[in-house]
Amino acid sequence: MNQQDLSESNLADMMPSEFRDLVRRGEWSAVNTNACRGYAHANLVIVPKSLAFEFLLFCHRNPNPCPVIDVTNPGEYHAQFSAPEADLRTDLPRYRVFKSGELIDEPLDVIQYWDENLVAFLLGCSTNFDSSLRAANVQYRYIGDYSTNIECVPAGSFHGFMVVSTRLFKTSHDAVRAIQITSRNLAAHGPPVYIGNPKDIGIKDIYHPDMFSFDEHIQPIEPNEIIMSWGCGVTPQTVALTSKIPFMISHCPGHMFVTDKLSEELAVL
Amino acid sequence: MNQQDLSESNLADMMPSEFRDLVRRGEWSAVNTNACRGYAHANLVIVPKSLAFEFLLFCHRNPNPCPVIDVTNPGEYHAQFSAPEADLRTDLPRYRVFKSGELIDEPLDVIQYWDENLVAFLLGCSTNFDSSLRAANVQYRYIGDYSTNIECVPAGSFHGFMVVSTRLFKTSHDAVRAIQITSRNLAAHGPPVYIGNPKDIGIKDIYHPDMFSFDEHIQPIEPNEIIMSWGCGVTPQTVALTSKIPFMISHCPGHMFVTDKLSEELAVL
Repeated sequence: MNQQDLSESNLADMMPSEFRDLVRRGEWSAVNTNACRGYAHANLVIVPKSLAFEFLLFCHRNPNPCPVIDVTNPGEYHAQFSAPEADLRTDLPRYRVFKSGELIDEPLDVIQYWDENLVAFLLGCSTNFDSSLRAANVQYRYIGDYSTNIECVPAGSFHGFMVVSTRLFKTSHDAVRAIQITSRNLAAHGPPVYIGNPKDIGIKDIYHPDMFSFDEHIQPIEPNEIIMSWGCGVTPQTVALTSKIPFMISHCPGHMFVTDKLSEELAVL
Repeated sequence: MNQQDLSESNLADMMPSEFRDLVRRGEWSAVNTNACRGYAHANLVIVPKSLAFEFLLFCHRNPNPCPVIDVTNPGEYHAQFSAPEADLRTDLPRYRVFKSGELIDEPLDVIQYWDENLVAFLLGCSTNFDSSLRAANVQYRYIGDYSTNIECVPAGSFHGFMVVSTRLFKTSHDAVRAIQITSRNLAAHGPPVYIGNPKDIGIKDIYHPDMFSFDEHIQPIEPNEIIMSWGCGVTPQTVALTSKIPFMISHCPGHMFVTDKLSEELAVL
């Protein structure tokens, strides 16, 4: 079966190990935010061991964009807690490689970049709370991911601005339910970081997401819509560029790692 | 005013900076679990920079006993997030110093042990949720802190058994409320790690706490009492002994650091 034959519903019904095998065999390299319904997706960040403390501290200080799900032992490419059978070098549809503040590659696997000194971090993903919002019949639209002027709390060499994912709600009820539901799942970015005018947090053009969007064309925002933004796991990529981190591997936005944990397994309440 | 003149209610009404000044001047070196009502207390762990990643990872993997509130930059003895004016070398009533698996000292300050390579971690404390339980009129009795046979998830050189703090509840209602209330405050150990017979988690003699207790004499446990145990911030001390960690400074049990953050400021919900 090749990529064209796989409909989104095929992907949604797969088990995480099935989907990862498909990716590992080179048969899926596209966006996979719909894969394996109910299972927690994760953002990936890999840094040299010498930067691992500073990056883990950065995550601790910035839990909204960077909620840590799993950390490998140095040199290990298996996620012992969340997906022990997976291979983090091959099982994401597409990767990004950053070197000294530049994006140098977007490969389909990172076997050639891997070495014994690397530590991999899996960070929660907003895909996980989107499924919780749908399960609770919360009505909203996701419009995209944006750069902001919200400064992350620095840690060692890691500093930079937060990336957010932004959603629109037509009723106060839906907005309040969304805050309640996302607050329970700190492993999926927790509650929103901003409610209100996107310009206030430095979003330049809400109709043109900087980072990622499903839609080519965003329908006009109506005056009664409540705009809320959540921390986004693409933040470390912006930080790698800003901080000129010597070496970092990450996922390509929308090309997520799928763990063996159900999203609800990682929720707080 | 000397230590004898200070009643518990004097301590409870002090601001954190007042209490820390008192300690720094050498005028309080006793148990301080009642100090500065409403303010978050913290367990202290200081390790060399070379062990900081492994210890932070240990905390991440064991969030019940080790909920991280604050981490200093290497060599800094100020807690930038939770108490920037405090001096972590002097502002706790009593410390413990561990070397290669042995407790070597219980000094009133750690100025002589401090060096530029140390990183300090402040971990949440059950004092913080005790005040939330009282505020909600939950009826219970705290009986003490115990060693268990619950293995912590290891990280690098850090491994060992969890220490718990144990409380008794006479009604299901109080027990359920306690689970709800502590679940909201992950920075204060979160929900209980065990409900049921203490023998099941290796507590040898419930009437003789291994670690810490206020009461010399624990009243008999009645058959209808529900026994619940929470992760305890003394756990890293047991781990230091078991793992023969080359060097660690910690607080002396019950002799806590008082932060400038209200306990409720650190709650999740």
